[in-house]
Amino acid sequence: MQPSHPRIRKYIELIVRRGLHLDPGQDAVVTASVEIADFAVAAVEECYRQGARKVWVEWTSQPLDLVANRHQTLRTLSRLEGWQLRKLAWRRDRLPAMLYLLSDDPDGLQGIDQGKRAAARRATYPRMKPYLDAMEDRYQWCIAAVPGRAWARKVFPDLPPARAVAALWEAILAASRANGDPLANWDAHNRDLKSRCADLNAHRFDRLVYRSPNGTDFTVGLMPESRFLGGSETDLSGREFEPNIPSEEVFTTPKKGRAEGLVVATRPLSYQGELIEDFSVRFHEGRAVEVRAAKGEALLKEMIAMDEGAACLGECSLIPCDSPIRNTGILFYETLFDENAACHLALGRGFFSCVEGFDKRTREEMLALGVNESMIHVDFMIGCETLDIDGVTADGCVVPVFRNGEWA
Amino acid sequence: MQPSHPRIRKYIELIVRRGLHLDPGQDAVVTASVEIADFAVAAVEECYRQGARKVWVEWTSQPLDLVANRHQTLRTLSRLEGWQLRKLAWRRDRLPAMLYLLSDDPDGLQGIDQGKRAAARRATYPRMKPYLDAMEDRYQWCIAAVPGRAWARKVFPDLPPARAVAALWEAILAASRANGDPLANWDAHNRDLKSRCADLNAHRFDRLVYRSPNGTDFTVGLMPESRFLGGSETDLSGREFEPNIPSEEVFTTPKKGRAEGLVVATRPLSYQGELIEDFSVRFHEGRAVEVRAAKGEALLKEMIAMDEGAACLGECSLIPCDSPIRNTGILFYETLFDENAACHLALGRGFFSCVEGFDKRTREEMLALGVNESMIHVDFMIGCETLDIDGVTADGCVVPVFRNGEWA
Repeated sequence: MQPSHPRIRKYIELIVRRGLHLDPGQDAVVTASVEIADFAVAAVEECYRQGARKVWVEWTSQPLDLVANRHQTLRTLSRLEGWQLRKLAWRRDRLPAMLYLLSDDPDGLQGIDQGKRAAARRATYPRMKPYLDAMEDRYQWCIAAVPGRAWARKVFPDLPPARAVAALWEAILAASRANGDPLANWDAHNRDLKSRCADLNAHRFDRLVYRSPNGTDFTVGLMPESRFLGGSETDLSGREFEPNIPSEEVFTTPKKGRAEGLVVATRPLSYQGELIEDFSVRFHEGRAVEVRAAKGEALLKEMIAMDEGAACLGECSLIPCDSPIRNTGILFYETLFDENAACHLALGRGFFSCVEGFDKRTREEMLALGVNESMIHVDFMIGCETLDIDGVTADGCVVPVFRNGEWA
Repeated sequence: MQPSHPRIRKYIELIVRRGLHLDPGQDAVVTASVEIADFAVAAVEECYRQGARKVWVEWTSQPLDLVANRHQTLRTLSRLEGWQLRKLAWRRDRLPAMLYLLSDDPDGLQGIDQGKRAAARRATYPRMKPYLDAMEDRYQWCIAAVPGRAWARKVFPDLPPARAVAALWEAILAASRANGDPLANWDAHNRDLKSRCADLNAHRFDRLVYRSPNGTDFTVGLMPESRFLGGSETDLSGREFEPNIPSEEVFTTPKKGRAEGLVVATRPLSYQGELIEDFSVRFHEGRAVEVRAAKGEALLKEMIAMDEGAACLGECSLIPCDSPIRNTGILFYETLFDENAACHLALGRGFFSCVEGFDKRTREEMLALGVNESMIHVDFMIGCETLDIDGVTADGCVVPVFRNGEWA
């Protein structure tokens, strides 16, 4: 389907109007692969229709990333020019809304030197962090998807290329609740998610306990200030936006240092353009102390060694098995979708916005409360039809939250 | 043909090895449309093979330019952020080699507000000029072409899309002398062009006189220091590169203020993504004082009003009708090719490198000698089978240079 198709037009409206919810005269930045240029241009035009002053496009290319990784020295990969930092400072000051359009091949970076890539990221991140920190929760952002050819082939290996892309479009639109009247769908969906959050937050759980016959036997601690969020979010200047389209999760940020036991992943994870499959993570005193994977174990180890916080948890997310995404029956090989098909945890950075009264607390206070900090934030899926989750309050009261993969 | 096809690989080698001729450890910037991403990535990889430290890609998109022009205010279009100037300063200091890959639709910007576009360019150019001036003749650059789909359709309107692209590839490779052994072809070709230049420069012409039954009746004055160049050029640090692939011309920079009479264009001109057709320009005392066009006259007028130098000449270029490009029989609607199929003039900026001893003269000295300065440099074709050109020396000696469109 072309960007001008009425169904795609409605999807673009959903992404821009609800996803970004631009202020009149605000700038926007659209990050998109060169492969989906037609769609990106249509999204840019919709931003202008919604009052954007100027829309910047940051084009990406997996093949170019591969070539750069192969041929540049680590020293060159690690370098940031003065103008690049100046550009980050401009973003910090201007606070454009950020639209990220995902379309990449889930294993399009196969063969890349992940160690070199990680080392470069470790070198550049500390110089970028002050700018990123200063922007946090101060602008609208939205991640949504567009079918790339290689991605469609991965998801539908038995279909001819054009039909695979069409099939992935159908799956994306269905999963994103973008058929029929997308804006009305999302109004109703947000009401559901927010009501679910209110129920959970009323319990003020001290910890969540996960158990499944697949081997998962795990407890994660929450902060007294942890609160569950879902659906739309609101930035510090009060603008409501949809950070993820689709989004089926209610999630919170756990307390650093409190995670114990084994979690078994139930879906493959596409990380840095490579797949990690059939893996498990053992936690002790809040840290991942052991990881095993049938495929991609070295990459998984690289991931949790990215920085001090990369082995700690930043998110606990609850999604019933009966979700529109899981019901498509499709494994997307893309976290934006697969994370919304099953309960998941995230290694790395936590969310300040999940701390009660976050708009009145300083960054340092929230880190002291137990929000994790890291240059990574990687979701991995642990939900399945046999997963039970209990919420336990500070006074020891046990409340069933999930039974057999569904809300209890 | 894919970038991995042996014939395309040889073409890429020609562009990068001869076109850019990188220093080991030098940076390169590749400017390319998102539409030809595969080719651009292959060119980037060849730059690395030739020793580049880091290759930057500046992606372009005509549809995005159209949308920006339509929706941004003139004020926004005219604005340069601090980081953009800082990036230019970085380019001035680092002096990366610049590869420009052309693939755009010759009338892909039809309907754009050219007045707004020109006004924005007039507003930004003075802020960019100090950086551009400081880089002049100090780095290698190369313009070459890759068939875009819409461009191929324009050139071969009767062929189905895939065959049109294949036909345009054949035409580009033939015109670029990129079949067989491209590097050897260019060695021989450069020898021919440089021997032709030596012959012309020996005459030290004071002026060129153009006449054709089509209406052209025109005299342009040269400086005593004007010298003809052709084929490869050499930058101020002695690196030899090919600014244009293809290139069939020998050319010089005329003396500002000395142009008189009428020139009739013999090919359409694609300028700023729109076509100007069936046009003529009348010069008096060095300036275009009257322009007429069956199509695109307003755009032509906009062009010569861009700045003070836009109505004056920056180049006189000599190409016989019997050239490989004209012999393809194809109208490319792209100046890189069409300018090499016929004698042409250029409105706007002249070339310091065409001034004898330019490497020992200051910029100000060369402007005082009569090199034209402008933000534009636009070639237009006046060659045809009936064109005669005489060279006239300062003491009045008349030397036939062209007769009936061929070297005399």
